[in-house]
Amino acid sequence: MVARIREKHDGALAGRMDIRVLLRLLSCSMTIEKRLRRRFIDQFDTTLPRFDVLAALERQPEGVTMSDLSRALLVSNGNVTALVRQLESDGYVSSRAAPDDRRRSIVALTERGRDHFADLATAHHQWIANMFAGMSPNDLTALYGLLATLKASIGAEHEESA
Amino acid sequence: MVARIREKHDGALAGRMDIRVLLRLLSCSMTIEKRLRRRFIDQFDTTLPRFDVLAALERQPEGVTMSDLSRALLVSNGNVTALVRQLESDGYVSSRAAPDDRRRSIVALTERGRDHFADLATAHHQWIANMFAGMSPNDLTALYGLLATLKASIGAEHEESA
Repeated sequence: MVARIREKHDGALAGRMDIRVLLRLLSCSMTIEKRLRRRFIDQFDTTLPRFDVLAALERQPEGVTMSDLSRALLVSNGNVTALVRQLESDGYVSSRAAPDDRRRSIVALTERGRDHFADLATAHHQWIANMFAGMSPNDLTALYGLLATLKASIGAEHEESA
Repeated sequence: MVARIREKHDGALAGRMDIRVLLRLLSCSMTIEKRLRRRFIDQFDTTLPRFDVLAALERQPEGVTMSDLSRALLVSNGNVTALVRQLESDGYVSSRAAPDDRRRSIVALTERGRDHFADLATAHHQWIANMFAGMSPNDLTALYGLLATLKASIGAEHEESA
């Protein structure tokens, strides 16, 4: 009887613990993202999605098709097209027809886009470094490892429920 | 000279480590949230914001004003009003004039709303338990502690930059 009560009690505690971890996880993510968005707007008059497009293009110096860019960013084609058009009119991105299929366009950073991205990336990295400044290298390594365990756990649940 | 190179090297590694932790943190949060949203739609034809409103009302059995509800949910008054109107027309929420100020309305869960929330909460907790099933109690406790350190670090940075 005591063992049974104990088991129920532990079960309830364990249940609350995962929810408490999740709430704290979501709270950290939201606060960091909110702060990054706010600073991109205030200090560079730009947005996180624009930064993500520039970062993806930075990794493809030879240029990339719009559909590959959408795939890399995990967002819909329409959204990426609108962002790329904006960045193009700002002079940060150029597009040209694909040599093998003139209906598809290849987009790439301009030199101005590369400079602009470098400024954004420096600030972005600094903001992140500041937000993580209270964590020791050991804390960071431990957190990185535990998030890997969580990621694997989330992945395993997906397989089971699929 | 070697010490200097070493220092720069460590600095670069440390910088990359916080970004790697952040990317993993955001990836876990996004995957979990996306999965919860999807299941609320598929299995209950409802949304995460509706669930959040019901959860907030559940904690206030005597009812709550719309502005207190907005504050508790950290969202704008207009958004909460729209959600509450929806939930009211579904029969999950009732509203009445505040006794001290008839222009303000007090909203509360109906009995049907309470039953509906109980079903949602049971499923929600089970989904979370399943997603965290690969983490031992020690992992959960360690992750909870490290997220507290991160939260404090983010908070301290905000103070400094304010």
